[in-house]
Amino acid sequence: MGVFTDGSHEQVVFCQDRASGLKAIIGIYSTALGPALGGTRFYPYASEEEALHDVLDLSRGMAYKNALAGLDLGGGKAVIWGDPDQIKSEQLLRAYGRFVQSLGGRYYTACDVGTYVQDMDVVARETKYVTGRSVEYGGAGDSSILTAWGVFQGMRAAAEHRWGTPSLKGKRVGVAGLGKVGKYLVAHLIEDGAEVVATDVSPKALEWAKATYPQVGLVADATTLITSDIDVYAPCALGGALNDDTVPALRAQIVAGAANNQLAHSGIEKLLVDRGILYAPDYLVNSGGVIQVADEIDGFNFDRAKLRATKIYDTTKRILELADTEGISPASAADRLAEQRMAEVGRLRTIRI
Amino acid sequence: MGVFTDGSHEQVVFCQDRASGLKAIIGIYSTALGPALGGTRFYPYASEEEALHDVLDLSRGMAYKNALAGLDLGGGKAVIWGDPDQIKSEQLLRAYGRFVQSLGGRYYTACDVGTYVQDMDVVARETKYVTGRSVEYGGAGDSSILTAWGVFQGMRAAAEHRWGTPSLKGKRVGVAGLGKVGKYLVAHLIEDGAEVVATDVSPKALEWAKATYPQVGLVADATTLITSDIDVYAPCALGGALNDDTVPALRAQIVAGAANNQLAHSGIEKLLVDRGILYAPDYLVNSGGVIQVADEIDGFNFDRAKLRATKIYDTTKRILELADTEGISPASAADRLAEQRMAEVGRLRTIRI
Repeated sequence: MGVFTDGSHEQVVFCQDRASGLKAIIGIYSTALGPALGGTRFYPYASEEEALHDVLDLSRGMAYKNALAGLDLGGGKAVIWGDPDQIKSEQLLRAYGRFVQSLGGRYYTACDVGTYVQDMDVVARETKYVTGRSVEYGGAGDSSILTAWGVFQGMRAAAEHRWGTPSLKGKRVGVAGLGKVGKYLVAHLIEDGAEVVATDVSPKALEWAKATYPQVGLVADATTLITSDIDVYAPCALGGALNDDTVPALRAQIVAGAANNQLAHSGIEKLLVDRGILYAPDYLVNSGGVIQVADEIDGFNFDRAKLRATKIYDTTKRILELADTEGISPASAADRLAEQRMAEVGRLRTIRI
Repeated sequence: MGVFTDGSHEQVVFCQDRASGLKAIIGIYSTALGPALGGTRFYPYASEEEALHDVLDLSRGMAYKNALAGLDLGGGKAVIWGDPDQIKSEQLLRAYGRFVQSLGGRYYTACDVGTYVQDMDVVARETKYVTGRSVEYGGAGDSSILTAWGVFQGMRAAAEHRWGTPSLKGKRVGVAGLGKVGKYLVAHLIEDGAEVVATDVSPKALEWAKATYPQVGLVADATTLITSDIDVYAPCALGGALNDDTVPALRAQIVAGAANNQLAHSGIEKLLVDRGILYAPDYLVNSGGVIQVADEIDGFNFDRAKLRATKIYDTTKRILELADTEGISPASAADRLAEQRMAEVGRLRTIRI
C-alpha cells in the first residue's frame, strides 16, 4: 500500500498539527483542468492506510466527475482522520485551513461526510480556497437541490435514448432513498407525470412521502423495489446498489440515481449491458451538487448554476450515444470522455497567453 | 509504516508526474523557525516505504540542525525515487521544481546525494525556492569550505571544554576521511599547530595528503586510527562511525567530525559519556554547510556566512556546558536546545506585527 504504488495521483499531502490532533490527507488527482475541488471527509478510519485508500479513491473520482461536469476544475478530496465528535475544534479546523491555504489554490475544499457549512466557515478563516460555505458567507446553500435536478436531467436523457422522448411521463420510477436528494427528485418526477414508487429505511421519510405525495407507492425495502414492475430505478442512498444480486433481479430498463459508487465492483457495468439495462453513470448524473458548490468560487448565482446542471442532460445523451457507437458500456464511455477532456483541455496550457 | 504512524512531521508531500517519471516526497518536519530547508536526495530506493522512511528521518534531522545553527529556517528534505543515471532529465527536474514552487516557499531545496548545482539550476527554472545554485547564478559554491570551518570551530570549543584552551596546538587529531571536508579540516588543524593522523579508503586522497602535508601521519584504516594514540577523533566519512565496536576501542578524549549520523544507534551517546569521551554532536558541528547554502537565500556573502559558521564555536561550548550542568549527554543537550529554540522562537509569531 502506498501513494505511488496504488495511485497515479499528481500530489498527496499529509498534514499534521500535533497540538490540535489534526491528521489530514489531501489528495490531488489532477489539476489539468484547474484547481482540484473536492470535499473534506472527517471520519474515524481504522488506520492510516484506510484513510489514504479512501482519499486516493475519492480524489480520483472527483477528477472524473468535475471533468464530465464541464467544470474548469481538477479532482481532489481530503480526509481528516479522527472522530469528528471527539476531536473537531476551532483550532483543528483552522490548522487544516492553513494547510489548504499553503497549497496556494491548487486545492479547493468543501463539505463532505462529517463536515458542514459551519465547519467550512471556520476553515475559511485561514484560507480563501473553500466552497460549501454558509449562505451568509456567500455559500450556495443546500446542494441537494441541484444534485436532484441533475439526476432528473440525466434520467430524462436516458429516457430519450431508450424510448425516444425526454420525459418520464407515464413511466414507473423506483426511488430508493428519500433523503434530501431523493425528496427533490420525487418532486421533479411527479411534476413530469411519472408514477413514483419509493422506499426508505427511515419511517420519518416514509411519513413525509405519505403526507406530501400520497400518490407515491411505498414499498418495504430496496429488494422489493428492484423486483417490482418499474421502468426506471433511481438508487439515491448508499453505494454499491448495483451488485451481483441486484442487477440480475432488476426489472427496470434504466438506472439513473444520485447515489455515489453505484457499481459494487468493476464488471457490473458489463452485466448491466448484457441484461439490456441502460445505466446513466452515477458520477455524471449526480454532479449537480459539485456544480452548485463550484459556482461559489466566482460568487454564487443559482440560475447560472442550474443552467450548468441542466447540461447534464446533454452530456448524458452524448455518453449514451458514444457507448452505442463504440460498443462499450456507458460507464466506460463516461471515463473515456472525462480522460479525453483532461488531456485535451489540459494540453491547451501549452499555448502561452 | 506510515506518515502519521512513524513521524510527527508537519507535512509530507508526495508528488508525481507520470510523463517524466517523477516520484518525489517532500518532508517538512517543522516550519516553526521559518521555511523548511533541506536538500533533495535522488536515489533508487528499493521501495516507496524506504524512500518515505529516509525522507522522514532526514527532514527531522534538518529541523534540529537548522535550529541549532541559529538559522531562521525550519527542517525539510526531499527524496526523488529512482536511479538518477536512468531517469534524471530536464522535464523531471522541472516537474519537481513546479511542485516545490507549489508549496509557496514553505520548503527550500538544495543539493544532496544524487543532485548537483547544475540540477538546482534546472529546478530553479520552475521555482524560486532553491539554494545550492551554481556560482554563476548566485550560488555559494563548494559548501565543504564552511562545513570544515564549522567542524574546526566545534572541535576548538570541545578542546577548550576539555583542556581549557580553544586550540588544537600540540594535540594529536585523527581524521577519518579525506574527502573535500576532511581536506579543508586538515588544513585548519595544521595551521592551528595540531599533529594530524589520517586515513582514507582512496589511494588518491592519501597521495594528496603526502604531497600537500608531508607531516601528516597516514594509517591503513579507521580501526588503526581509532586505536592509535590520538587526542581527538574526527569522523569525516560515512555515518555510524561511533558504534558498539569503535567506542570501546577509541583512545581519543574528544570526538568532533563532519560525518552525518555518527551515532550508530541511540544509546551510543551514553557509552561515550561512560567512557569519558567528549562528543561534539555531529549535526551541530557540521552545520557550516547548511549555513553556507542558507546564506544564498538573501544573496550569498561569504564573510557573513563564515561569521555565522564561526558561531558553531559558541553553540558547542554552550551545549557542552548544558550537558555538564544537566548531567546529560551532549547529544541530548543538543536535541534539547534545538527543541527549545523551535518552541520559543516559533511561539513569537503569536505576537502580531
